[in-house]
Amino acid sequence: MSATIIDGKQVASEVRAEVATGVAAFVERHGRAPGLATILVGDDAASAVYVGGKQKACAEVGIQGFDHRLPGDATREQLVALIEQLNADERVSGILCQLPLPGHLDGVEMTNLIAAEKDVDGLTVGSAGRLALGLPGLRPCTPAGVIRLLDHAGAQLSGAEAVVIGRSNLFGKPMAQLLLQRNATVTIAHSRTRDLEAVAARADVLIAAVGRAEMVRGRWIKPGATVIDVGINRLAEPPAGRRSSLVGDVCFDEAFPVAGAITPVPGGVGPMTIAQLLANTLQAAELQAG
Amino acid sequence: MSATIIDGKQVASEVRAEVATGVAAFVERHGRAPGLATILVGDDAASAVYVGGKQKACAEVGIQGFDHRLPGDATREQLVALIEQLNADERVSGILCQLPLPGHLDGVEMTNLIAAEKDVDGLTVGSAGRLALGLPGLRPCTPAGVIRLLDHAGAQLSGAEAVVIGRSNLFGKPMAQLLLQRNATVTIAHSRTRDLEAVAARADVLIAAVGRAEMVRGRWIKPGATVIDVGINRLAEPPAGRRSSLVGDVCFDEAFPVAGAITPVPGGVGPMTIAQLLANTLQAAELQAG
Repeated sequence: MSATIIDGKQVASEVRAEVATGVAAFVERHGRAPGLATILVGDDAASAVYVGGKQKACAEVGIQGFDHRLPGDATREQLVALIEQLNADERVSGILCQLPLPGHLDGVEMTNLIAAEKDVDGLTVGSAGRLALGLPGLRPCTPAGVIRLLDHAGAQLSGAEAVVIGRSNLFGKPMAQLLLQRNATVTIAHSRTRDLEAVAARADVLIAAVGRAEMVRGRWIKPGATVIDVGINRLAEPPAGRRSSLVGDVCFDEAFPVAGAITPVPGGVGPMTIAQLLANTLQAAELQAG
Repeated sequence: MSATIIDGKQVASEVRAEVATGVAAFVERHGRAPGLATILVGDDAASAVYVGGKQKACAEVGIQGFDHRLPGDATREQLVALIEQLNADERVSGILCQLPLPGHLDGVEMTNLIAAEKDVDGLTVGSAGRLALGLPGLRPCTPAGVIRLLDHAGAQLSGAEAVVIGRSNLFGKPMAQLLLQRNATVTIAHSRTRDLEAVAARADVLIAAVGRAEMVRGRWIKPGATVIDVGINRLAEPPAGRRSSLVGDVCFDEAFPVAGAITPVPGGVGPMTIAQLLANTLQAAELQAG
């Protein structure tokens, strides 16, 4: 017995194809494309790569990209003015402020200036509240992408024991909410959890998002469980027998013989985030168009 | 061995005394008392009792009460106008719209018209989002009261396995968030949970909020656990040997010899809700006064 590998690249490309179809229909009805504005402050190399990837993905599905860049010493007033301008711009369906911001700017404050209906990252207070209360709204991209992967893998969520390791605002907490909405019995574990191995071993659905390379070992996994690895950690060199030096939070080689299904790193959860951002942008455009 | 009984009446009276002291200091500084506006639409007898209890509690600690009543056939426009008037009224620190509203009015919509800084019930999208993201804000009264009871009982929350049975917006979901902030490993169980007894039996801190009389049995409880019973169910007649026909969601007589500490019904969680409402009203007044 060994696990089915959940192919995130394939599922992400399905999502992108669905979005492209939806965008074409939107253009047909409204005479314009949905638009995604990205804001990058400063010249952090990794952030520039992320923003570039998002803009490229928009172009591929027909979403109009608005690529805004401010210098690293931009003032709070400049950034506020830009966000307010984008909030008011009807061509802009979604707004994404790439984090982290330079130290003199408050990422939480700036994110919360984004109009609720354009919050395609799902990270504002309004979006978090709508999720917590079970109201419709834009959901954070990575947890939404994980739900899509679980559905693709045929995971039974209702009544399942789901364990999320990690409690960030970006992933762990909204992930738990989405699993609860799907009627899983949800446990959130974290750095203070006493016996993490025992908690993980209860999980029918185990989701690791801790940012520690290969922390989740094979013996932590309930036989047959569905394992979702959200971590992306770069080792100094590739592990024996691998080409990539990227590894997840799960020790794949140990987990593979035990799990029922598992996402690889890379090629698992990673590709879903941008795909879901595109889906959120289309959803936002459709909601704004009524 | 038998459990320590957590005396909610005593803890609630401590909270009320603290609020009374805080209110006196507020009056000293600002020349006016904090104010709580309650809104009751229609003549539901139970709702009238609740609102009356809240107004009486305000008077006892020196909070100025504003007791607004609308007829059962009040229009949406009338209720909206009242909430907007109270939002703008500087004497009103907190606003509480008693639920449920008559069927032609949308309780979620109306609640969300309350200004974030006056949301002393902690039930708006903004308050739920602030709680989910770990930002400061007004927290729902009953879960906040339970945290106070747990602290009073000396329960160790950091690293503890906490299980919340029930996932309502009013209690279960915010309770889980508050426990997570205190570094517990938190599980939310509910009607779809497969083996509720086994899940409950893992809990160092077990919190039942399901609304089913005495559903949680003695064998569900880990020896020494702290048990918080949020249920209030009225039986046709008092159980054998009892004077009150009110029982909780936990079978007290079975739980008492097993648990380390337990809240009774009545006299456990119940008294905390109004006490915490008073504390929230004072907190709101202080925040608004800067």
